[in-house]
Amino acid sequence: MKIAVLGGDGFVGWPTSLHLSDQGHEVHILDNLSRRWIDTELGVQSLTPMDSIQERSRVWHAETGRRIHFHLIDLAKDYEILKSWLAAERPDAVIHFAEQRAAPYSMKSDRHKNYTVSNNVNATHNVLNALVEIELDAHLIHLGTMGVYGYSTIGAAIPEGYLPVDIETLSGEKKRQEILYPTRPGSIYHMTKSLDQILFQFYAQNDGLRITDLHQGIVWGTHTEQTRRHAQLINRFDYDGDYGTVLNRFLIQAAIDYPLTVHGTGGQTRAFIHIQDSVRCVELALLDAPKRGERVKVFNQMTETHRVRDLAEMVATLTGGRIAWLPNPRKEAAENDLIVENRQFLDLGLQPITLAEGLLSEVVEVAKKFAYRVDRARVPAVSAWTREIGKLVERDPEGRALRSVS
Amino acid sequence: MKIAVLGGDGFVGWPTSLHLSDQGHEVHILDNLSRRWIDTELGVQSLTPMDSIQERSRVWHAETGRRIHFHLIDLAKDYEILKSWLAAERPDAVIHFAEQRAAPYSMKSDRHKNYTVSNNVNATHNVLNALVEIELDAHLIHLGTMGVYGYSTIGAAIPEGYLPVDIETLSGEKKRQEILYPTRPGSIYHMTKSLDQILFQFYAQNDGLRITDLHQGIVWGTHTEQTRRHAQLINRFDYDGDYGTVLNRFLIQAAIDYPLTVHGTGGQTRAFIHIQDSVRCVELALLDAPKRGERVKVFNQMTETHRVRDLAEMVATLTGGRIAWLPNPRKEAAENDLIVENRQFLDLGLQPITLAEGLLSEVVEVAKKFAYRVDRARVPAVSAWTREIGKLVERDPEGRALRSVS
Repeated sequence: MKIAVLGGDGFVGWPTSLHLSDQGHEVHILDNLSRRWIDTELGVQSLTPMDSIQERSRVWHAETGRRIHFHLIDLAKDYEILKSWLAAERPDAVIHFAEQRAAPYSMKSDRHKNYTVSNNVNATHNVLNALVEIELDAHLIHLGTMGVYGYSTIGAAIPEGYLPVDIETLSGEKKRQEILYPTRPGSIYHMTKSLDQILFQFYAQNDGLRITDLHQGIVWGTHTEQTRRHAQLINRFDYDGDYGTVLNRFLIQAAIDYPLTVHGTGGQTRAFIHIQDSVRCVELALLDAPKRGERVKVFNQMTETHRVRDLAEMVATLTGGRIAWLPNPRKEAAENDLIVENRQFLDLGLQPITLAEGLLSEVVEVAKKFAYRVDRARVPAVSAWTREIGKLVERDPEGRALRSVS
Repeated sequence: MKIAVLGGDGFVGWPTSLHLSDQGHEVHILDNLSRRWIDTELGVQSLTPMDSIQERSRVWHAETGRRIHFHLIDLAKDYEILKSWLAAERPDAVIHFAEQRAAPYSMKSDRHKNYTVSNNVNATHNVLNALVEIELDAHLIHLGTMGVYGYSTIGAAIPEGYLPVDIETLSGEKKRQEILYPTRPGSIYHMTKSLDQILFQFYAQNDGLRITDLHQGIVWGTHTEQTRRHAQLINRFDYDGDYGTVLNRFLIQAAIDYPLTVHGTGGQTRAFIHIQDSVRCVELALLDAPKRGERVKVFNQMTETHRVRDLAEMVATLTGGRIAWLPNPRKEAAENDLIVENRQFLDLGLQPITLAEGLLSEVVEVAKKFAYRVDRARVPAVSAWTREIGKLVERDPEGRALRSVS
């Protein structure tokens, strides 16, 4: 297959591109390299030294003889360029990772809120619009998030996208319907993925586009089979308070002897998936495209759920680290249960990598290797969901004063 | 109250501004005058000769001694200007009409789809974002559409925004929840109003913004009490295939001896409201603001439902016109029922103006007076929902060849 990977320079995009190239697909990365620009803006960098996309692609070719093509396109702004590219190349599938993906970054300031909404909505809509305009029947796979479901305890299992409900009809009878799960996103970032759902629903219904939406849990780990092959193929690995995600951050914090930062009670239950499973899931979804005219296919791309404080305690035990209990910069339920259905990927043959079998120590090893690159001042999560909450997020666990936006 | 009317130069915005000014409120119109630019783009004009917003405001002042202030701001693009204006003026309420509002225009081409999505989403988000940023607790009233509910027969009444459903819990019991009505918009335009709903839900939940969303039916009529006071205060009145709406179009078509254009079987059932009731409803909503922390208040702003072919037959009987049965350029159910709850406005004292009591002939009179301004070539609806449907929309009822975009 010829596959366009939008946002193929990012944390999941890059290993996905390598994985698909390794499977023999012709891979084209379209990316505006915004993650690298945001690193520059925030004054942070990937814990792992990350080469340019051109250099990474060159190394991949030298190692495997396979080419990964790179095209610098801003999908949110350059609609005509995107359309021309798709019309000329006519890929069989388009995998869409090209959105600003950090909840804390999206809540940093009004500028960051606007950027996230405008970038994510316009990027997604431009892709859909172009596919219709050039009459390209490519399978569109989008990386969504478990966060669109919201994180409040509802006493029911989270289904894969569609919820069966009973509605009272005019005659007083109950009628069963399947509806798109009522969305309750908890940040501007998560909200943009809810907006995406509505865009997908419309384009599947009006234009028969074939769309798969992957509601992914929190990704942990850093290596996949392909990134291990050469030092310069290494994946990016974020430890900062905006882009670092919870389990990976605990492992890095442990590696650099920084307190494990638990926000609030740590009673938040979240869904997780290892990066290796993440790229496998994308491949499984690719091979299981919906038919033209079918509704959007939604997968829950996660393999297990954990409570944040349990993870912190597990990592503390494993590494001898200590936990810092901090005010929660997010506006969210202090405690929630989370039961998630994920039969579809298991039925397609996914064999989950779980925490217990563990690649936890591998992550700690990677973090230790590059610990000299860590700026400890960038570790705390400082982006607050409201101004009132912001007043509570004053000091990092080492006593430094904090500012959300510098 | 000091009230900002965003999009106050438009078809509902202008009479609303007059009505509120007449009630003694301090009215500020913020508008980029995009409707006038779109007229220019499409080569059409309001059937009624419409003066500049500055001239209209001058006439209003001369007639009543009251001022309506005008500020040329592009809400979708000029976030910083909007924010500064709101911070300086700190209005008590913000009424948001500032979106591209024609479904056919939104489906005309990829450019029009992108414009509608980008303009509407960014305008709405900029307003929400600015209110939070400057900590302004103004009541935000947004003009939505009945179209977010979708137009398929579901056998249940359309509630005002929130649908009670039964969900099966883990223990097998049913649990009652009220959810935001599962949206099923039928055009890019309607879709943007569904996106707005998600934005409103988030900002009410995260930031406690006080928001009212008015799901309006199809507006008919042209005059309100205030627009009648002076020839230059007249409202705009659209007859073209993109911006003209169904009942008004029938009345204009009858006035100029053009066949009444019914698309498909005419079995579509739609909700209607007279422009005079529309501005009254906005006022009623204004005085009934939700409290801080409450969920978004949703009203169904409509007073009656009718099947399109019944309206055509009624107008044909009234005026002696004939009906042209044309292919439907929209992708929609050929026939649908529509039962809509609208208790909230009735409870607040709305006394609906219905078709039977009729202001129908007034509309025909206005249309006849300005019939010399009609370009008959602009009457047909030519914007098709898909390329396949577009092939069917070939000729107007008078035999002219049609093109969607010139």
